[in-house]
Amino acid sequence: MKPLGPIPAGYDVMDGELAIGGRKVSVLAQKAGRTPLFVYSKAHLDARVAELRAAIPARIGINYAVKANPHADVIAHMEPLVDGFDIASSGELRMIQEAQIDPARVSFAGPGKRDDELEAAISAGVTLNCESEGEAQRSLAIGQRLGKTPRIAIRVNPDFELKGSGMKMGGGAKPFGVDAERVPALAKHIIAQGAEWRGLHIFTGSQTLSADAITEAQSNVLNLAASLASQIGQPLPKLNMGGGFGIPYFPGDEPLDLSAVGAALHDLLDEHEAAMTNTELCLELGRYLVGEAGVYLCRVIDKKVSHGQTYLITDGGLHHQLAASGNFGTVVRRNYPVAIATRFSAEPDEVVNVVGCLCTPLDRLADMAELPRAKVGDLVAVFCAGAYGASASPANFLGHGPAAEMIV
Amino acid sequence: MKPLGPIPAGYDVMDGELAIGGRKVSVLAQKAGRTPLFVYSKAHLDARVAELRAAIPARIGINYAVKANPHADVIAHMEPLVDGFDIASSGELRMIQEAQIDPARVSFAGPGKRDDELEAAISAGVTLNCESEGEAQRSLAIGQRLGKTPRIAIRVNPDFELKGSGMKMGGGAKPFGVDAERVPALAKHIIAQGAEWRGLHIFTGSQTLSADAITEAQSNVLNLAASLASQIGQPLPKLNMGGGFGIPYFPGDEPLDLSAVGAALHDLLDEHEAAMTNTELCLELGRYLVGEAGVYLCRVIDKKVSHGQTYLITDGGLHHQLAASGNFGTVVRRNYPVAIATRFSAEPDEVVNVVGCLCTPLDRLADMAELPRAKVGDLVAVFCAGAYGASASPANFLGHGPAAEMIV
Repeated sequence: MKPLGPIPAGYDVMDGELAIGGRKVSVLAQKAGRTPLFVYSKAHLDARVAELRAAIPARIGINYAVKANPHADVIAHMEPLVDGFDIASSGELRMIQEAQIDPARVSFAGPGKRDDELEAAISAGVTLNCESEGEAQRSLAIGQRLGKTPRIAIRVNPDFELKGSGMKMGGGAKPFGVDAERVPALAKHIIAQGAEWRGLHIFTGSQTLSADAITEAQSNVLNLAASLASQIGQPLPKLNMGGGFGIPYFPGDEPLDLSAVGAALHDLLDEHEAAMTNTELCLELGRYLVGEAGVYLCRVIDKKVSHGQTYLITDGGLHHQLAASGNFGTVVRRNYPVAIATRFSAEPDEVVNVVGCLCTPLDRLADMAELPRAKVGDLVAVFCAGAYGASASPANFLGHGPAAEMIV
Repeated sequence: MKPLGPIPAGYDVMDGELAIGGRKVSVLAQKAGRTPLFVYSKAHLDARVAELRAAIPARIGINYAVKANPHADVIAHMEPLVDGFDIASSGELRMIQEAQIDPARVSFAGPGKRDDELEAAISAGVTLNCESEGEAQRSLAIGQRLGKTPRIAIRVNPDFELKGSGMKMGGGAKPFGVDAERVPALAKHIIAQGAEWRGLHIFTGSQTLSADAITEAQSNVLNLAASLASQIGQPLPKLNMGGGFGIPYFPGDEPLDLSAVGAALHDLLDEHEAAMTNTELCLELGRYLVGEAGVYLCRVIDKKVSHGQTYLITDGGLHHQLAASGNFGTVVRRNYPVAIATRFSAEPDEVVNVVGCLCTPLDRLADMAELPRAKVGDLVAVFCAGAYGASASPANFLGHGPAAEMIV
C-alpha cells in the first residue's frame, strides 16, 4: 500500500459524493456531458485570495501568473480578485486581451520572446520583463519603430535561490533574467533611451512549503532590490518579488504557514521602508492561487485483476494530468491526492492501482492506493488539479483530445 | 561538456546547412512561414520500411502504430508502405478513416476503451484487441445491439518482458491485456458467442536496442502463442507479435542490429512453422518506423551569458519536444542529438546550453553541448523527433501553441 497526498480543505460531501461548488460530481459530469472533466471552484479561488490579503501587508499587490491556469473562466474570475497579471507568451497576451484586462496591469516575462511578441506587447502597453540585454535592445528598437514608448522592467537572475523549492529559478548560471551585477548598467541604458522604466522582477523559485525559506528569499530579494535601486540611482517604480508559495501534493506535505510568511513580510517591509517608499510591490503567484481549486474527474471504464493486483482503468490519464502521473519534473513518483469521488464518504477497503486509458505504463494516477471499493462507472477525483493540469499536459497524445473544463 | 546523442544517418549538407528531402532547412522554415517546425522525411520513412522488409521473413507483415506520429501526411505516406495500422483511441480511428484506410487493416488496442469507442470501432469493422474480460463482454453486447459481428483479438499480458526495454509492457501485474493463463477461456467464450475471432496481440515492451533481447522476446511470444492456440483448440487466425525495436537517442547508443533480428526471426519461424502455418503474422512498430525520419527545427531568439555559461534561447521547447527535454519517462536527463542546422558542416567550437522559450528550468534541449558558434536567427535541429514529439508534448503550455509540421 502506498499513501495518497492530502486532499485540500474545503471540499464537501453530499449524498456520499464529493461536491464542488454545492453540486455533486455526478451532476457536474452530467452537466459537462462527458468525462474527463476539470472542475474549478470559485469558492476556493475566493478563499485563497482572501487568506492571502489578510496575511500580507496591504500595500503588497497580488499578481496572477496566467500560465498556472489560462482557462478563460478562471482568468475572468481572477480579474476582480487580483491586482495584476503575468503572462509568458503572446498566446497568453491574447487571452488577457480577450478577458478585456487593462494592459497596464499586465507584465510579460519569458526568456525567448520573439520580435512579433515584443511588438504585440509594446503595442498593447504591457510591461516587458526583459530577460537580457539583447531583448532590451530589440524592445527599444521595436518601440522606436512603432512610435510607442515601451514599458520595460528587468528580470534579475539573483545570486541566491529559494531553498526547498521544487523549481529553482535563481542562483548561478540560468537562462532567466540578467545576472544581478549587470542590471544597473542595463537599467540606466533603458532609462537613457527613453523607455518607461518599470523596475525589477526577481523570481527565485517555485513550490516551496517552507515559510522560513520564503521569508529568507523575500529578505534577499528586498536587499538586492534596494542595492540595485541605489546603484541605478533612483527608487524602483515597481518590484515584482516573485512567488514560490507551494501547495501540498504528496503524502506528508504540510500546507505553507501563510501567517508566518505574512508576519515576516510585515517586518521585512518595516525594515526596508526607506528604500521602498515609492515602489509598487507585488507577489506573483500562480499555483498557490489556483492549484487547490481544481479537481480532475475521470470515470472508471474497467476494473480488472492482473497477477493479484487490482486496476481501476479510467478514461483519464497523463494526457490531461501529466504531473499527477509523475512524469513532469519529478524523479520519484508519489501519489497525488486521489479519491473515489462518487463514494467520497465511504471507508477505504481495497488496494488498487488507478491508471489512465493510454497504452503506456507511464499512465498512472495512483499506485497501490487504499480506496473505497469502486465499480465501473464510478468517478475518480484527482485533487490539486487547478494549476499546470489541462494546459501543461499532452492533450493530443494517442488522439484522445482535451478534457472538458468547467468553473462552479 | 556533455556529449550529444548520435545524429541519424541519411541527412545531408547543402551550402553548409542541414538539408532534408533535398531542401535546406532555411528554405523549409521559410516555406512553413514560421518556426518551430517538425519536418518529416519521406526518404527516411521509405528507407526504413525497405530495410525492414529486406531483413525479416516476407510472410511477416508490418503494422504502423499510429500513436507514434498521427500527422495526416505521415499516415498517408505510410498507407502504401505498411500492411496494417494500430490505433489507440477513437480519435486515431477518425484519423484512419480520414485517410481512407481499409478498416480490415486496422486494430485497436488500449486498456480504457469507452463504450462509444467500441461502438465506433465495431461499426467501422476494425479489430478490437480486447484488454479484459469486461471489455470483451461489452464488445459482444455492443455488436449484438448493432447487429454487427465484432472482430475480436485478445491482448495478452505475457509472463515475460522485453529485456533492456525503455518501457516494459509485460511480466507481472499490468493494466494491459489479459493474464496469459486466462486467455484460452476468454478466447473460447468469444468464439462461442459468434464474434469473428482475430487471434492474439502480445506486446512485451518498447525501445530496446538489443537484437538478442528482441529475439528472446519474439521466441517467447511464439512459444506462448503456440501454447495458447493449442489450449484454445484451433490455429490463431492472426498474431500481432508486438514491436520493441528501438532507435538510438543518447550518447553511446548503438543502432539495433536489424540483420541479426531478421536472421533470428527466419530461424524462429522455421521452428514454429507447424503451429503458425495458417496464422497471419505481423510486427507492430511505431517509433522504429518514424522516429529517425523527423527533425524538430527551432530558431535562436537570444544568445546570452550568465555566470560564465552561454545560453542559446530558442523559440522551441518542451511544449513540442517533451521527451527531448528529459521530462517524459526518463530519470536522468541526457542530450538528444542536436545540431546548429544552419551551420551543419561547421566545426564545433563553443559549449552552450540550448534551452526553450518557456519560463521553467525544465525547458532544456541540450546541456553543455559543444556546437558550432551560433547567432541569433540560426536554426537548431533536434533529431529523432519523428515519434512521440508533436502529439506527445503539452502544446498549450504557456500559450505558445503547436509547432508547424511538414513532410518532404
